[in-house]
Amino acid sequence: MQAPPIRIFKEFPKSLLKKETQTLLIFDKKLKKLSSNFSTWSKSFLNYSVQGGESLKNIFHFPFHMEKILAKTKGLSSHRIQLVAVGGGSIGDFSGFVASVLKRGVPLTHIPSTWLAAVDSAHGGKTALNVPPFKNQIGTFYPASQIYLIKELLFTQPESLAHQALSEVIKMALIDGGSFWQKLFSLSQKKIHQEKKKSKMIWTLLKPSISGKWKVIKRDPYEKKGLRQVLNLGHTIGHVLEGLKGLSHSESVAQGLFFSIDWSSDRGLMPNRTKRDILCCLNSLGFKKKKNFQLKKSEVLTSLLQDKKIYDKDHIRFVFLKYPGKCLIQKVSPQDIIGQAYKQNWLIRCP
Amino acid sequence: MQAPPIRIFKEFPKSLLKKETQTLLIFDKKLKKLSSNFSTWSKSFLNYSVQGGESLKNIFHFPFHMEKILAKTKGLSSHRIQLVAVGGGSIGDFSGFVASVLKRGVPLTHIPSTWLAAVDSAHGGKTALNVPPFKNQIGTFYPASQIYLIKELLFTQPESLAHQALSEVIKMALIDGGSFWQKLFSLSQKKIHQEKKKSKMIWTLLKPSISGKWKVIKRDPYEKKGLRQVLNLGHTIGHVLEGLKGLSHSESVAQGLFFSIDWSSDRGLMPNRTKRDILCCLNSLGFKKKKNFQLKKSEVLTSLLQDKKIYDKDHIRFVFLKYPGKCLIQKVSPQDIIGQAYKQNWLIRCP
Repeated sequence: MQAPPIRIFKEFPKSLLKKETQTLLIFDKKLKKLSSNFSTWSKSFLNYSVQGGESLKNIFHFPFHMEKILAKTKGLSSHRIQLVAVGGGSIGDFSGFVASVLKRGVPLTHIPSTWLAAVDSAHGGKTALNVPPFKNQIGTFYPASQIYLIKELLFTQPESLAHQALSEVIKMALIDGGSFWQKLFSLSQKKIHQEKKKSKMIWTLLKPSISGKWKVIKRDPYEKKGLRQVLNLGHTIGHVLEGLKGLSHSESVAQGLFFSIDWSSDRGLMPNRTKRDILCCLNSLGFKKKKNFQLKKSEVLTSLLQDKKIYDKDHIRFVFLKYPGKCLIQKVSPQDIIGQAYKQNWLIRCP
Repeated sequence: MQAPPIRIFKEFPKSLLKKETQTLLIFDKKLKKLSSNFSTWSKSFLNYSVQGGESLKNIFHFPFHMEKILAKTKGLSSHRIQLVAVGGGSIGDFSGFVASVLKRGVPLTHIPSTWLAAVDSAHGGKTALNVPPFKNQIGTFYPASQIYLIKELLFTQPESLAHQALSEVIKMALIDGGSFWQKLFSLSQKKIHQEKKKSKMIWTLLKPSISGKWKVIKRDPYEKKGLRQVLNLGHTIGHVLEGLKGLSHSESVAQGLFFSIDWSSDRGLMPNRTKRDILCCLNSLGFKKKKNFQLKKSEVLTSLLQDKKIYDKDHIRFVFLKYPGKCLIQKVSPQDIIGQAYKQNWLIRCP
């Protein structure tokens, strides 16, 4: 699996139009209202507008989508269709899956419209559908042929959404370490980024975030060796909080990072000074460790075992951190996680 | 894409059982009645029995299948599941698709139970679902990790079904030429094969059929270069007859081969002596050219344009044959095909 070329544009590009190929644009319907330039630009292509969100990925809706998409591309062989996905993570996951199975695969371009997709989900080739109540149980590995980052589109979002992507950027900097981590740390200490303009900061950090992710993926593109699991840093606990407490993905992952950092330190894996720096960075960027989530042991256990990343019901591969740039994956039991959650005052004790 | 290893067994093998891996057997429910050995053997695995046939591939049924399959493999990561498909073409297409998308891909073993699957559909990595009324519009390229040919299982079929696979064997021999064609030709001239025991003949020809198919696939595994289209020999017309007249796949392909041979000869591509040998082989094995299909030009045109192999509505890549071992793909128009169909007394003239 190769990292697809990433092209950066200030405005909506004309270069999608290829002779002899029809472009089907799958996009978030709200974009037409948000950006008149997008609305004009979209008229050059076949259009399929959808509503973003997890419901789009529901497998029971999938046949109806495919029926409509096939009607729009009727009479075209797979060689004559290209699919372009414009939207956030759910639209990328859905469109990626569609592209991977439509006539056994058509070329795909991702144009993320949210910071979270631009930083994370548009990269790495994972596509997904949900079989409720379980997320992402169906999918393929199908990297885009190219990814367009369009400044005008990304800056259409309200500034508050930049915060949503920040914990994934922090996670990537912790995994990648080196100059990426140094850059993030120094930016986090500048007052301007602490207060606002997080979107500008993320735009600056897009390239190292993406290349950091690809450094991991290249070593284990199809998750056969377990190496890709370092990308799960902060996510084992993050998914529990996202599922049970309805916290945003960003806040959940941030709390997952706090959990992992404290546990890594508790296990003697992370030096105190390193811990101090990381917590300082997280705090400066607006994330505070929370406690007392009012969760019961039994519901946390159930949620942990539903995570598709678990090894089996007795073993979970948990991502620890020694220092930025050095993760450690260790097998722990769900009970180990519960024990640590009590220690971090994270669970309520109940019978 | 690599040709998966093919293992040949006399009886149902024990070797599927891997430590730490759960095997989910997707199989044709009628097999339990047909073979008590299969019934006993299947008890060692997780079972998911289905009814074979095109309805299994209906995309609207797919979500319900996935819900049940996920329930059977609950709590297992993709590394701990292997899927084994036992059945004919529809079960192979369906199970292959399931294996390719279940938790983003689990290992797959094909165990064809029909001659047609053993000869053709189990090989080459194509998986498929249908979006009615269109066949195979959804799918992936996902070759099996291994293919088991179990003599006991294949010979459970009634002898009459061997005839169903024969036209695909003849097609492969025509594409591959050389010693494979010579062997088929000489077998076809032996009276024993003309009368019965076609299953024994196919068993003998399984290996060259499969390796002939892989020779083609290796040159163009994902159908990007158009080279894999030689496997479509006899199928452009075959699909029209299968769809409009309800002929069996084998009979349809045989009639498609007759059509292609006559047209190749008519175009001056095929020498008369070659034509005579091929027709002699087809006739000896029980296939006779039919005429006057009572089809209208308009319905043939509509059917041709629905074929997913067409290039676009004005161009169809038609596979001609110069001699066994040498196909020629030429772009023709649907009108060219209609003209040839009239010439071969194949269409009725109507206003």
